[in-house]
Amino acid sequence: MLTLEQVERVMGAATVAAEAAGVAMNIAVLDEAAQLKAFVRMDGALLGSIDVALGKARTSALFRMNTEAVFEFCKPGGPSFGLENTNGGLVVFAGGCPLIDEAGTVIGAIGVSGGSPDQDGEVALNAAKTLL
Amino acid sequence: MLTLEQVERVMGAATVAAEAAGVAMNIAVLDEAAQLKAFVRMDGALLGSIDVALGKARTSALFRMNTEAVFEFCKPGGPSFGLENTNGGLVVFAGGCPLIDEAGTVIGAIGVSGGSPDQDGEVALNAAKTLL
Amino acid sequence: MLTLEQVERVMGAATVAAEAAGVAMNIAVLDEAAQLKAFVRMDGALLGSIDVALGKARTSALFRMNTEAVFEFCKPGGPSFGLENTNGGLVVFAGGCPLIDEAGTVIGAIGVSGGSPDQDGEVALNAAKTLL
Amino acid sequence: MLTLEQVERVMGAATVAAEAAGVAMNIAVLDEAAQLKAFVRMDGALLGSIDVALGKARTSALFRMNTEAVFEFCKPGGPSFGLENTNGGLVVFAGGCPLIDEAGTVIGAIGVSGGSPDQDGEVALNAAKTLL
Repeated sequence: MLTLEQVERVMGAATVAAEAAGVAMNIAVLDEAAQLKAFVRMDGALLGSIDVALGKARTSALFRMNTEAVFEFCKPGGPSFGLENTNGGLVVFAGGCPLIDEAGTVIGAIGVSGGSPDQDGEVALNAAKTLL
Repeated sequence: MLTLEQVERVMGAATVAAEAAGVAMNIAVLDEAAQLKAFVRMDGALLGSIDVALGKARTSALFRMNTEAVFEFCKPGGPSFGLENTNGGLVVFAGGCPLIDEAGTVIGAIGVSGGSPDQDGEVALNAAKTLL
Repeated sequence: MLTLEQVERVMGAATVAAEAAGVAMNIAVLDEAAQLKAFVRMDGALLGSIDVALGKARTSALFRMNTEAVFEFCKPGGPSFGLENTNGGLVVFAGGCPLIDEAGTVIGAIGVSGGSPDQDGEVALNAAKTLL
Repeated sequence: MLTLEQVERVMGAATVAAEAAGVAMNIAVLDEAAQLKAFVRMDGALLGSIDVALGKARTSALFRMNTEAVFEFCKPGGPSFGLENTNGGLVVFAGGCPLIDEAGTVIGAIGVSGGSPDQDGEVALNAAKTLL
């Protein structure tokens, strides 16, 4: 089960990485059942990316994979046309990934938004690594 | 009219098939009016596919055809562009099919999600056959 | 964690109790994070009580108490005016209760609807006891 | 303008006060435009009070007053019958209050939920004071 102590480590790593990238980001952390655990909007982060960060974390928690991996299913010509419209709307570009503990259990997900998808994804993946 | 006894036969067949495929699945059964009749989430099934299973069953009940047949109408270049956005959102890849009784009457629909669309579709079709 | 085996015991007990009461009921079982695990609509149960059963189970899972206990907070003159309008709408009359395992852990919730609140509540409580 | 540094002070004070009260709480902080700035769910806090905490902060930000002060307008016999149903639903019992800086400017709002309204309100008011 995801603890606040773990979340604070993840959030700390994400904000440090965002600052290093010079981008103000929104960072959402959900538990393994996609329930909100913590959120931070860095000063100057885009308002429109609040919902994107939450959506990335939700998408990643619901499907236990990176957001860009969900895209492989619903991209043009992919096997699951329109999957992104289920569950009240998914976010299927980089920036969300599962949080996995030392034992290999998925205990939640992080969603990051504010930079390019590549930047967001790198911040999310690096932050998630702090739990390993 | 779909009875609970029929639903239990369908559900039983679907879970046996899912176990045989080695995939934890969500299985939804609706009646001919697309009203929820029964639902089962197998242990370990993806949370994100709860809504997908419900959506497949709803799509199939509303249009009395397999979900992948609805895709033929709304696929790129198809005759009904955007059909998947009606009815609060349809799910138009394999895994949903009508439930038809011995007399050939559509009495409901089943939606299965958790594996690949091919796996889901096979489980749904096999489960539906138990009513024939 | 709530298993399908436990859910089947709860569902079985609830439908037996509903049949004994002579009332067709809708029965919803959610996990401890309020995610749908199983649902059954008995033959003849009111369509309008599908959503009521789901709402009772959700209310009980979210607040880890019986639905009628949530009413004590939001009833006229209670301390939390309008609480029933949060979380997308709560259902705050009898028929929902937590599912608690032998170790005393809340592992989910059941919601029952179709009879009077008293009847629904009795069925829910009796079904929940099968896990103790 | 509300800064993350200020939010961290408020969040820190709120969690310390919640721990002192022995209650696991959800704490939401919004800016003066009612946009989400930060959120924390303490370990063990009720899932149902996530939405309540967000709703209290939103109500307080939108009306620049304590949530229980909004109740005076919409309580039975009050001048604004049904006000609580505007804005997508307000939360009008104690636990939300404006965040005011040294200069007397409203720069956001905090919403706290998890204990009794009295407990929540005390935590919110004490946390808000750290900005004065």
